[in-house]
Amino acid sequence: MRNVYVLGAGITKYGKSTLTGRELALEASRKAIDEAGISATDIEAGFVGNAFSISEKQGHMGPIVMSGLGIPDAPASTIESACASGGSAMREGWVNVGSGVYDCMLIAGVEKVSQLDTITATTFFSYASDFIFEGACGASFPGLYAAIARAHMTEFGTTQEQLANVAVKNHENAMSNPNAHLHKRITVDDVMKSAVVADPLKLFDSSPFSDGGAAVILCSEDFLRKTSGKTSETVMIRGSGRAGGTGALHQRDDMTSLNAAVLAGREAFKRANLTQKDIDFAEVHDCFTIAELIAEEDLGFARKGEAAKLTQEGYTSLKGELPVNPSGGLKAKGHPVGATGVGQVVEVFDQLHHRAGGRQVENPRIALTHNVGATGASAVVHIFEMN
Amino acid sequence: MRNVYVLGAGITKYGKSTLTGRELALEASRKAIDEAGISATDIEAGFVGNAFSISEKQGHMGPIVMSGLGIPDAPASTIESACASGGSAMREGWVNVGSGVYDCMLIAGVEKVSQLDTITATTFFSYASDFIFEGACGASFPGLYAAIARAHMTEFGTTQEQLANVAVKNHENAMSNPNAHLHKRITVDDVMKSAVVADPLKLFDSSPFSDGGAAVILCSEDFLRKTSGKTSETVMIRGSGRAGGTGALHQRDDMTSLNAAVLAGREAFKRANLTQKDIDFAEVHDCFTIAELIAEEDLGFARKGEAAKLTQEGYTSLKGELPVNPSGGLKAKGHPVGATGVGQVVEVFDQLHHRAGGRQVENPRIALTHNVGATGASAVVHIFEMN
Repeated sequence: MRNVYVLGAGITKYGKSTLTGRELALEASRKAIDEAGISATDIEAGFVGNAFSISEKQGHMGPIVMSGLGIPDAPASTIESACASGGSAMREGWVNVGSGVYDCMLIAGVEKVSQLDTITATTFFSYASDFIFEGACGASFPGLYAAIARAHMTEFGTTQEQLANVAVKNHENAMSNPNAHLHKRITVDDVMKSAVVADPLKLFDSSPFSDGGAAVILCSEDFLRKTSGKTSETVMIRGSGRAGGTGALHQRDDMTSLNAAVLAGREAFKRANLTQKDIDFAEVHDCFTIAELIAEEDLGFARKGEAAKLTQEGYTSLKGELPVNPSGGLKAKGHPVGATGVGQVVEVFDQLHHRAGGRQVENPRIALTHNVGATGASAVVHIFEMN
Repeated sequence: MRNVYVLGAGITKYGKSTLTGRELALEASRKAIDEAGISATDIEAGFVGNAFSISEKQGHMGPIVMSGLGIPDAPASTIESACASGGSAMREGWVNVGSGVYDCMLIAGVEKVSQLDTITATTFFSYASDFIFEGACGASFPGLYAAIARAHMTEFGTTQEQLANVAVKNHENAMSNPNAHLHKRITVDDVMKSAVVADPLKLFDSSPFSDGGAAVILCSEDFLRKTSGKTSETVMIRGSGRAGGTGALHQRDDMTSLNAAVLAGREAFKRANLTQKDIDFAEVHDCFTIAELIAEEDLGFARKGEAAKLTQEGYTSLKGELPVNPSGGLKAKGHPVGATGVGQVVEVFDQLHHRAGGRQVENPRIALTHNVGATGASAVVHIFEMN
């Protein structure tokens, strides 16, 4: 596999949008193209991460995006891995450019769901569970992650206040992210007093339904040299990992860990030839507060049951040893499903280029993204380095 | 890129099924695994071609299939490119194995739509058009392909009887395919007298809504040698091509050709280092009869406007120079959207292994598959050789 570089990145504001999915994807894609300093016609092919565009009656989103960019000949398939659709699209971009099949690709991610009311959206999202056993029985994702949280609390003594700490930190980070869905500084008390969604998870433990688009340009070293005349000061993909887990929670031996994330993390670290200590910051999949703690444990940043302390002690804060979700994470930056995994890479791109404003991590060089589908039926981990 | 081999292939009966999508995908996958002589645990990862499983309330089909096979750790994303979803899944399998990322992959395709009534299914399928400009205005796929047919008739004098010839041939071929959806020998007169769906296309010009699953095992030369102790008498992917076209028909300069198929065909022939003369038979995307004629022209088997004669003169019949759709094609074998492109490869596998029974092509060694999404917004072409 050849080296693969992230030449440009673009993102829309996350939140409730009046734009259609295609318009969100196009806005992000055009920004990424501009940022990369290329023209759209340089793009040979693409992938679009998307899970629920059929809710706005538009499938086959790939060619719609490419046509909108004026490059209809360039093929683009949609990649769907539920909430890991964006990360999975990144992965296949890495494989396609790394293998030499293409020299320049667009990886976009998009979701538009604010036209759905909350009950319809939750039901629609539950189609990403093992529906026969879960969604159809009323177990939508808040309930499934609540079961995971309860298991973690029972096994390790994790408290609801410790979960709340994650929300407080990520809301704080999002205050400096102009593209974040939620700009609202909160306290542990606010979280504890917010409405119960699925006990023990409350409203402020949960990521919002967001609309949004994100896009990156991936390229080979040859293309990079031709375009920019350099290969240094460019973000490179150091490692990539992809793994699966059971569709349904009841098939798991252990509900306190997402095995797919463990395996994807191992593959990414192995390919990168790096260890946890090398990571300067991470964007992880905190669809619910419990998910951030489990992510830190699954990725080897904390021993099992000990992640809660990391947040409590400020280790994962913006100024801590290992900032986690400086963007605000899914929790506060927002969670436009298909865009989420690509949006994590946009944050890495901005941070490694030292242009993250008030949420800038101090001198980062190596970063990790962690994107999960459903309750861990899919997971994708990438490691990036400023070259 | 390394050589990529098709080690096993499996398919369900196409038609109206009482099984769920996951069951259809699992049935085909288990057959492919058995045929390959491997165990499921040899599979490292997969892709599932699927477009409309949300209509049965199940997204995230990849992990559902892998879990069902007892290999939940092996990741699988869904690839959606409308009716080219299966071919696109094949393409990414080729890239992943060819690049050395994996040595053994499952590529499955599946669709389950018979729970929808015809109007709902047609509406659902129209989400794969450029919906804002087409589906929303009532232009569903029969109408869009009717416009294409009318343009071809106007430009080249193609007649409705010539379209009917395609249906007659493919229905005849399907008579010897036990897995075909339609077992009904028809005449040109039957086609001409069948109900008009979208003038000039009639019921017998149109492929049916089918349920079905198909799967293949792709592997590297190393894996093949380890498993079977040989690399000869195995089906190899000689070439792969993938291209796009505008989402909407009104954006095209020419409606008598699908440019994506032209480009995908060129890439596949170039990678295979072969020409049209080398192809012993082809499985092409005849979602409507007009589509088979255009496919033959787009792929360079006939000059523009001259494909109709090929059918008329028996050139594309089972005993002709270039048998096209010996399986019966989408027209009569059936068209379970996500499965279609993978099912074409299953037919190639069976034909190249000389086990296609009454529809066996005479001594084939090299074959081509052609899979189209929407009205040519996506196209994928593969060329296979018996090694």
